[in-house]
Amino acid sequence: MTQNIYDDPTFFAGYSALPRSVKGLDGAPEWPSLRAMLPPLRGLRVLDLGCGFGWFCRWARDQGAACVRGVDVSANMLARARAETAGPGIDYIQADLETLDLTGERFDLVFSSLALHYVAGLDRLLATMPRGHLVFSVEHPIYTAPARPGWVRDTAGHAVWPLDSYAEEGPRQTDWLAPGVIKQHRTIGTWLTALLRHGFAIAAVEEWCPSPAQIAANPAWRDERHRPMFLLIAARAT
Amino acid sequence: MTQNIYDDPTFFAGYSALPRSVKGLDGAPEWPSLRAMLPPLRGLRVLDLGCGFGWFCRWARDQGAACVRGVDVSANMLARARAETAGPGIDYIQADLETLDLTGERFDLVFSSLALHYVAGLDRLLATMPRGHLVFSVEHPIYTAPARPGWVRDTAGHAVWPLDSYAEEGPRQTDWLAPGVIKQHRTIGTWLTALLRHGFAIAAVEEWCPSPAQIAANPAWRDERHRPMFLLIAARAT
Repeated sequence: MTQNIYDDPTFFAGYSALPRSVKGLDGAPEWPSLRAMLPPLRGLRVLDLGCGFGWFCRWARDQGAACVRGVDVSANMLARARAETAGPGIDYIQADLETLDLTGERFDLVFSSLALHYVAGLDRLLATMPRGHLVFSVEHPIYTAPARPGWVRDTAGHAVWPLDSYAEEGPRQTDWLAPGVIKQHRTIGTWLTALLRHGFAIAAVEEWCPSPAQIAANPAWRDERHRPMFLLIAARAT
Repeated sequence: MTQNIYDDPTFFAGYSALPRSVKGLDGAPEWPSLRAMLPPLRGLRVLDLGCGFGWFCRWARDQGAACVRGVDVSANMLARARAETAGPGIDYIQADLETLDLTGERFDLVFSSLALHYVAGLDRLLATMPRGHLVFSVEHPIYTAPARPGWVRDTAGHAVWPLDSYAEEGPRQTDWLAPGVIKQHRTIGTWLTALLRHGFAIAAVEEWCPSPAQIAANPAWRDERHRPMFLLIAARAT
């Protein structure tokens, strides 16, 4: 079973205060890049894996999606989703992505934002996925790999990201909002190979860093161009 | 025009002493992975971009390729190729990958080993590529990105790779075998997006690090699992 750190009270309080939680999709700086990977949503059946507060579900419905299902393991997240982003054509379901069975379900688009790096059983999940578009973001493996993540200064005083253990795939335990958060580290090669093995064609890959325009608007993000935080992938199975 | 560092006497002397130069394909630890990405070569017309000493050309011909053309900018490399790996059905041509025009040429497989990261005009080259299989290796962007590449020790004494400037694409000047070697840094996203833009489907992606078995046989390579040195890609245009 997934760790379900989002139902940890300390984690949930911290997560709820993040810009992406307060401002919704527009509070996530990678959202414009992820949105650009989506097909036109009008008339599509949409599934959001790890829907959180449901910001994407509501947006997708506003774009004309025929119906939207949001799935999340966290009761806390779903309670807020049902209170704040519900509406006709949207349903929210509590389920663990480690065991969710989508066999026989029909969706035209599966979307997932920053959730699949919690899933240990990626192959099992991909095997049960409906054919169609798959657009998702995860933490970039450069971001998840290090044993001791966090900027360090080199001898000249420049910020560098202390990369190590990139080839050692598997769980990583970090302290982010709460102690002992567990994520699954996979290389880009492994993500793409898994998709190809399950019949998906790769449509787009972006290693997201803030653009120079975003840095100009948020100077504190400057070091974020030294290493990508997010990996964005679009794929399609026919 | 490409820098053509391989015709620099100091560089060429150093390069000629590398295991991959002395032992051929079997001296390149990533070769088994790259070979696994190749289609069966029997009867294929094969082009090798940046053929160097021609080890791959000769091997491809031995595998039953119908004909093999090796292209390289370096007169030094081609002189040795013509002396040591030539044979019926193999031809070696001196050309710069920045200006090589393949329009109208027919090849079933384009192969390239550790050459395309020297090419600034990647889009121009891809636009002129024949349809068919494309299998290549380049230096991994994690390897090319840093302003000051080279292992450093963190405060606990562990080896880390000082990643920075990953999002800043373009030329990198390093001292490798000779001072001032110029390589082009591109993210994995940029490599894959360029291929997709030119009509190639992605068939395989591997971020090569030595396997645990290779480390056991070569303990000095241990730190190489901390960050990938090579990026291997197979693609196909129909």
